[in-house]
Amino acid sequence: MRLDLFDNSGFSRGISSRKEALWWVIRSLFFAPWFPVPSAIKVSLLRMFGADIGRGVVIRSRVNITFPWKLKIGDHVWIGDEVLILSLAPVTIASHVCISQRAFLCTGSHDFRKENFDLVTKPITIGIGCWVAANVFIGPGVNLANGTLCAAGAVVMRSSQPGQILSGNPALPRASGTRA
Amino acid sequence: MRLDLFDNSGFSRGISSRKEALWWVIRSLFFAPWFPVPSAIKVSLLRMFGADIGRGVVIRSRVNITFPWKLKIGDHVWIGDEVLILSLAPVTIASHVCISQRAFLCTGSHDFRKENFDLVTKPITIGIGCWVAANVFIGPGVNLANGTLCAAGAVVMRSSQPGQILSGNPALPRASGTRA
Amino acid sequence: MRLDLFDNSGFSRGISSRKEALWWVIRSLFFAPWFPVPSAIKVSLLRMFGADIGRGVVIRSRVNITFPWKLKIGDHVWIGDEVLILSLAPVTIASHVCISQRAFLCTGSHDFRKENFDLVTKPITIGIGCWVAANVFIGPGVNLANGTLCAAGAVVMRSSQPGQILSGNPALPRASGTRA
Repeated sequence: MRLDLFDNSGFSRGISSRKEALWWVIRSLFFAPWFPVPSAIKVSLLRMFGADIGRGVVIRSRVNITFPWKLKIGDHVWIGDEVLILSLAPVTIASHVCISQRAFLCTGSHDFRKENFDLVTKPITIGIGCWVAANVFIGPGVNLANGTLCAAGAVVMRSSQPGQILSGNPALPRASGTRA
Repeated sequence: MRLDLFDNSGFSRGISSRKEALWWVIRSLFFAPWFPVPSAIKVSLLRMFGADIGRGVVIRSRVNITFPWKLKIGDHVWIGDEVLILSLAPVTIASHVCISQRAFLCTGSHDFRKENFDLVTKPITIGIGCWVAANVFIGPGVNLANGTLCAAGAVVMRSSQPGQILSGNPALPRASGTRA
Repeated sequence: MRLDLFDNSGFSRGISSRKEALWWVIRSLFFAPWFPVPSAIKVSLLRMFGADIGRGVVIRSRVNITFPWKLKIGDHVWIGDEVLILSLAPVTIASHVCISQRAFLCTGSHDFRKENFDLVTKPITIGIGCWVAANVFIGPGVNLANGTLCAAGAVVMRSSQPGQILSGNPALPRASGTRA
C-alpha cells in the first residue's frame, strides 16, 4: 500500500470547487452548531445545494452531510444528532425513515488489495419505513429493504430483506424473525 | 411505519419551552467548546437546570446532556469527552462511577411494531463503582448493578449483576468471572 | 472502586501546564472547526507542539489529539474526520497508513481491580500500510503489524500479525486469510 501513489483524479465530486467551498461555509454556520437550527432552514439549504428532499423532514444538530447534491430524502424522515452521511456516492432515503443519533452512512471505501489504495464508492439505499438506530454504521453498497430495523450499534455491511431486524458486529438478521 | 402519524404530545419534557431554550444556549456556550471549561462551572450550571449532582464530579468537554433536570449524579463521578446522555427519562449515576470518552447513555427508543412509531423512554441506572468504558452504548431501561464494568465498545441492552464484566455487541457477561 | 482516592500525580503529561493550555487554544481554533483548515497548517502546528510528522500527511476536520508531543507520524498518512487520538502514551503511526472517520486510538485505561482506579497508559503502534477503517476502536498497548486492516467498527484490543484482517467486537482475525 503506497498512499503517495493514490490518484483521485477519476472521482467526480459532482460540483465546482467554489460551490463546494460555499457548502463548507453553510455547513459550518447552520449544521455544526449545538444550538438547534430549525429543520426547515436546513432543508432549504440542502435543496439549494442540490439535495432532493420531501415534506416533513426533521434534521437535528451536528448532522454532517458531505455532498448534499448526492442526497435524496423522501417524506417524513428524521435525521438525528451527530449523524454522519458521507455521500461520496448517492444516498437515497425513502419516506418514513428514522436515522438515529450518531449513525454513520458511509459510501466510501478503498480497494485495499491495490497498491494505490483506489477510492471505491458505492450508493446506499434505505427503503420505506426503515429504522437505523443509534450508533449504527452502514457500509458502501448496502441496500436496506423496506421496513428493515438496524438495532443500536449494528455494523451493517450487507443488504437486508424486507422487515429484517439486524444487530451485532458484523450485523446479522435476528433469528427470531421480522418486524411485521 | 408512518412517521407522519407520530404523536409526541403525551411525552413530558419536564420543563417550559423557554427554559429548555435557555438550556440550549448554556449548553452551546459552556459544554460544546473544545477548550476545557472547568467542571465546577458546568456542575453549577447543570444544578441551576435541576440536575442533582454530588461532590467531586468531573465533566470533560463536549458532554451533551439532553435534559439536566432528569439527571442525578452522586459523588466522585467522571464524565469523559464527547459523552452523550440522552436523558429523556431519568438517568441516575451513583458515586464513584467513570463514564469514558464517547460513551452514549440512551433512554429513548421507539415502538417499531406500532405504525405511529411511539416514543418509548426508560430510565437508566448506573450503580456504585461502575465503569462505562470508551465508546460504550447503554440502551433504555438498563440497570448496571454496583461494580459493573462495560468494556470499550460494548453495546449494552440488558441489565447486569454486581461486578460483572460486559463486552461485545450485543454485550454479554464475560465467562471468566467478575471484577471482585 | 473509590474515585476520591485516585492519584494521578505519578502521570507525566510531558509538557508544562502553560504550554498545554496553549495547545488547547490552538486545537480549538484550527482543529475543532467544521470548515476545512489546510492540512499543512495543522501539521505545522502539531510539529510546533512536538509531534514528529513526515511528508504528505493529510489531517481532516475535528481531529482531536490529546498530546501532540507524544505523537509520531510517518510519510503519506491520512487522518479522517472526527478521529480521536488519546495520546496519553506514545502513539506511533508508520508511513502509508489511513485512519478513517471517527476512529479512536485510545492509550488510556484504568486498573479496575485496584480500589484507586489507577490510570494505566500503554503506547499504540501502527505499522506500515495499515488501514484503520471508520469507527474502529484501538485499545491501549495494541501493536498493529504492517499491512493490518481493521474493518469498519472493529473493537481492537489485541495486537495483530502482518497483513491480518480484523473485524468484529471484540475484533478477531478473519479466517479467510490476509490482505496480501
